[in-house]
Amino acid sequence: LTLDDARNSSGADRPLAIICGGGSLPFTVADSVQRAGGRVVLFPVTGWADPELVERFPHHWFKIGQAGRFYRLARDAGCRDVVLIGSAVRPTISQIRVDWLGMRLLPRIARLFRGGDDHLLGGIGEIFEELGFRLLAPHMVAPEILVREGPVGRSRPSQRDELDIRRGFALIGAIGSFDIGQAVIVAENRVLAVEAAEGTDLMLERVAALRQDGRIGLPKGVGVLVKAPKPSQDRRVDLPSIGPRTVEGAARAGLAGIAVVAGAAVIAEPQRVADAADAAGLFVVGMRDEGTAS
Amino acid sequence: LTLDDARNSSGADRPLAIICGGGSLPFTVADSVQRAGGRVVLFPVTGWADPELVERFPHHWFKIGQAGRFYRLARDAGCRDVVLIGSAVRPTISQIRVDWLGMRLLPRIARLFRGGDDHLLGGIGEIFEELGFRLLAPHMVAPEILVREGPVGRSRPSQRDELDIRRGFALIGAIGSFDIGQAVIVAENRVLAVEAAEGTDLMLERVAALRQDGRIGLPKGVGVLVKAPKPSQDRRVDLPSIGPRTVEGAARAGLAGIAVVAGAAVIAEPQRVADAADAAGLFVVGMRDEGTAS
Repeated sequence: LTLDDARNSSGADRPLAIICGGGSLPFTVADSVQRAGGRVVLFPVTGWADPELVERFPHHWFKIGQAGRFYRLARDAGCRDVVLIGSAVRPTISQIRVDWLGMRLLPRIARLFRGGDDHLLGGIGEIFEELGFRLLAPHMVAPEILVREGPVGRSRPSQRDELDIRRGFALIGAIGSFDIGQAVIVAENRVLAVEAAEGTDLMLERVAALRQDGRIGLPKGVGVLVKAPKPSQDRRVDLPSIGPRTVEGAARAGLAGIAVVAGAAVIAEPQRVADAADAAGLFVVGMRDEGTAS
Repeated sequence: LTLDDARNSSGADRPLAIICGGGSLPFTVADSVQRAGGRVVLFPVTGWADPELVERFPHHWFKIGQAGRFYRLARDAGCRDVVLIGSAVRPTISQIRVDWLGMRLLPRIARLFRGGDDHLLGGIGEIFEELGFRLLAPHMVAPEILVREGPVGRSRPSQRDELDIRRGFALIGAIGSFDIGQAVIVAENRVLAVEAAEGTDLMLERVAALRQDGRIGLPKGVGVLVKAPKPSQDRRVDLPSIGPRTVEGAARAGLAGIAVVAGAAVIAEPQRVADAADAAGLFVVGMRDEGTAS
């Protein structure tokens, strides 16, 4: 399946269904599809998606668990292709509203939730296919969200930083089969943090706190946040992402910069990321990684 | 070098130098050596060691950086064998007092601090050897601090817990060459947390907070804290350890229990650990691990 296939089969008459989590990425994707002449219908998830940003597009809110509501509305709108994008937080029980289809899928989704993220997201992809939709990777319909090789903003990693980046890529490769996070922090060859259930933002906060407490014996401006897809990852639903908030978190953690695998990470609001990086004196860079690049 | 060698060469006339970090383990070791007929001189590190517990033994306080002070006092006391034990926090600059020998060693120690923990501790062992001391593993002079195979306390892991424990041991093995932490938290096959610079207690706090926020979709009483030595680890200075505080942290994190590699982890105050585990309904278990047991 190529990008052209995806665009053609989606066609002018079949709008793309975009299931929206948090952050600005869903709207970047929607804008991109519209600019290319396509139509979109947004399905923002209550509690995750930004209500203000949603207003610019045709949309139907739904709650986690309302699989039937999504199914009915997406079929009525003539959607066949579906993109799932934006940040997600594991929902609390009180946020879940199960309808008829949600109820039918519940035992299966509950089992999915017991595994790691790959397991969960891969399983959700399967469910979409069974319902007659086709799950597409966001970067297939909006390729500009992918990070390119080279710096975003003015700064570049030093040679020392590049060694830390290589070590980070290697570590993410080594833990890939364990379906953990997609991010680590490496500083002068020392691994300061490994992301698991807490997510990138909380991991950055932790390193900021350790640094403040004097528990990391390294000067400020040393260390890199490294993000890379896990080898096992379903890239249709879960490429690592960065945005302005990631840059702010990395700055508070006293890091030198952020590195992702070029072509295998998505960036929300590249201009704001570049501005934030330049303001903080951090580098943000897309790099080739032979181990993880597809 | 066997335990008997270590005891004989230490001899009745040569007291064992015990460099004491935080917690109760240093005193468990000191008591054990005295019970076996040996003599000890404690070298508590200012800011780490417990001043009250130190009082029961001959001791000389010293500060991080005062290598010369330690060298002079330990030689004057006739010590040749040295044990390094107890929890350590990376010191802040203001806690460091560098004397003549500390000054000479400073560039080397600064370099050591830039690597991971293994690197640091291995390097410190080398320095002791060069100064004419012999660095011994705490469990060589006090074997009862090692966790045995089987449960500590009344509870035992379920079959489900045992699968999580195996996964945890495998993960620690996979990241071993990266010189990261010795601990992970696995719950129903999902890796919730990986320890790096933050240490076990903060990792447990993090999982407690994630659980409270509803970000871990698993009931209470599911998940295991797994600790194992890294393959690369210098076991003379850095076996993973557990104590009553670890049990309290695991209980707050809603875990089912704690698993360590039998014979390759040390336990502070086993009776208090067993009591705390029984009170919280947690298991604490030493298990064989073919991958890491020596």
